Amino acid sequence: MSAGRPLLRALRGEAVTPTPVWLMRQAGRVLPEYRALKEEHGFLGLARDPELAAEVTLQPIRRFGFDGAILFADILTPLLPLDFGIDFAPGPVVARPVEGEADLERVRIPPAGSLDGVAETLRRVRAGLPEEVTLLGFAGAPLTLARYLLAGSGARDHAGLRRAVYGEPRFLENLLERLADLTIHYLELQIEAGAEAVQLFDTWAGLLPEEEYRRLALPPVRRIFQALEGQVPRIYLVKDGAHLLEAMAESGADALSLDWRVSLSRARRILGRGLVLQGNLDPGCLLGSPEAVRRGVLRVLEENGGAPGHVFNLGHGLLPQTPLENVGVLVEEVRSWRPAAASP
Amino acid sequence: MSAGRPLLRALRGEAVTPTPVWLMRQAGRVLPEYRALKEEHGFLGLARDPELAAEVTLQPIRRFGFDGAILFADILTPLLPLDFGIDFAPGPVVARPVEGEADLERVRIPPAGSLDGVAETLRRVRAGLPEEVTLLGFAGAPLTLARYLLAGSGARDHAGLRRAVYGEPRFLENLLERLADLTIHYLELQIEAGAEAVQLFDTWAGLLPEEEYRRLALPPVRRIFQALEGQVPRIYLVKDGAHLLEAMAESGADALSLDWRVSLSRARRILGRGLVLQGNLDPGCLLGSPEAVRRGVLRVLEENGGAPGHVFNLGHGLLPQTPLENVGVLVEEVRSWRPAAASP
Repeated sequence: MSAGRPLLRALRGEAVTPTPVWLMRQAGRVLPEYRALKEEHGFLGLARDPELAAEVTLQPIRRFGFDGAILFADILTPLLPLDFGIDFAPGPVVARPVEGEADLERVRIPPAGSLDGVAETLRRVRAGLPEEVTLLGFAGAPLTLARYLLAGSGARDHAGLRRAVYGEPRFLENLLERLADLTIHYLELQIEAGAEAVQLFDTWAGLLPEEEYRRLALPPVRRIFQALEGQVPRIYLVKDGAHLLEAMAESGADALSLDWRVSLSRARRILGRGLVLQGNLDPGCLLGSPEAVRRGVLRVLEENGGAPGHVFNLGHGLLPQTPLENVGVLVEEVRSWRPAAASP
Repeated sequence: MSAGRPLLRALRGEAVTPTPVWLMRQAGRVLPEYRALKEEHGFLGLARDPELAAEVTLQPIRRFGFDGAILFADILTPLLPLDFGIDFAPGPVVARPVEGEADLERVRIPPAGSLDGVAETLRRVRAGLPEEVTLLGFAGAPLTLARYLLAGSGARDHAGLRRAVYGEPRFLENLLERLADLTIHYLELQIEAGAEAVQLFDTWAGLLPEEEYRRLALPPVRRIFQALEGQVPRIYLVKDGAHLLEAMAESGADALSLDWRVSLSRARRILGRGLVLQGNLDPGCLLGSPEAVRRGVLRVLEENGGAPGHVFNLGHGLLPQTPLENVGVLVEEVRSWRPAAASP
């Protein structure tokens, strides 16, 4: 039953042995069976077809037996039904960006039915998942979504977002409010369709100094997590957030997913042992030798210091250059490790 | 005389009012007089001609009266005379990257005379500079240079560097040793030609967790700073280094240049008031309104808390989208500010 799933237990703060493990970007990128499908259908072809998207979500579970399966979708998926002209080439291109107040009405909850494919994908994945594996939903955090919508011709250096932060903070607040509403709707749809935990990706929030982060990025995140209170465990990832640890801890998330730059030991020293942490092996480590992967995994587990509430993951997504073999080594090493206190 | 120059005094830890100010990337990018020259000669045409490079270095001093003028050159300039086939398109492209031990012999001190243009540029700049302005030399730190030489086809995600960090650390150490030798030579050439302070840019070191940073990136930096001991003030910049503050402070630099993510108040809380700090306004702030620039400047000055040894700068280079007017506002605001204790 769902209450006993190892990943869910760790997200509730329990000590779970072996440490549950899943990897950001575990679906796609490094799997030959994914590449074959992508060759045939293209990225959007996969993401838009619930049967194919479910298949791609399940592939890494079959091969590696991860403790969590995360919805195969793009961070911009909930924005695709809206009038922004988003395409992938292969990175996201926004033909009709948000440039001023008049554009804000385009930022709204997508029309009924337009995200049914996501719900259908999640139902299919759950039906195909082993009982003990947790189904994860996800969304991009408002500031991170805004970075794409504000980019327009100024995508370089994230100039659109940064101009808004300092030049039009009221306008940006309005945009982020609307994106928070949209995200709450999107995550509730996922939970209704079977997502047993959700992760909010704030990939670009680390661009902001702490003061701007607290004023602009954090409030809509808090509102999203409040809206989901008591439903499923909520995980919050900020990339490049070594300077934002204390602020992230005020987000209302049940677990923080840390990038590889801050060690778990430092995070626990600053934030305490009670916090649930996810992470945080450097994805670059998987480009090294299998021996380096073993050492890296061991270090992360030891830096957690035996604190309960740890989910093993990378500090960011798997790099496309990762040798497949190293992913297997990682999982094997996590699974064979035991905390010192539990040794015979 | 040079000993009295405000920027040099601040780099020696003195309290200087008004706070000395210069900006990374102050030459080029936002200046119309630079764009006109670049249109005519191209980037390499400017960088390779001492008369033009000196002119470009002096342009921002004439327009804004900065306290420091920094050599106009590329971070890869000392590698151009070597057999790597480096070109700019417009970002750097390395036709013959470093892929294994056999390639290391190509990493060496450039042939005599091949960097004379840099020395000539510095002499011309000094001759054209107002007496009170400090002439700054610079170089890329070994790990940051290695990121380009190791890239090859794996430039995406810095995969070449990250693979070496975890897969071939001995090879990488050898490469970094050689790059340190080359950099010492290059900076000594600049000091001999008149550079009165030098800055080492470690743009990519922040990709590494603290352990790898300490093992690989830091030792060659320490060796470079040791070799220059007692010659001129040495400034060290790490981008994205919020997790590396304590380690950076062991580099042997006279001053740390901080990116905009860590506030000066946090840095001084961790590292003490005795440290000389440079920085660290978010370059994104200059995309906002003039009023936002004033507030941003004021905040940085106040976060320094009146500690002596502060050089005002950005947290990273000026963004090309910066309105020229905002640079003037920044300088004006720094110049008009007085620490609270010195108020009448």
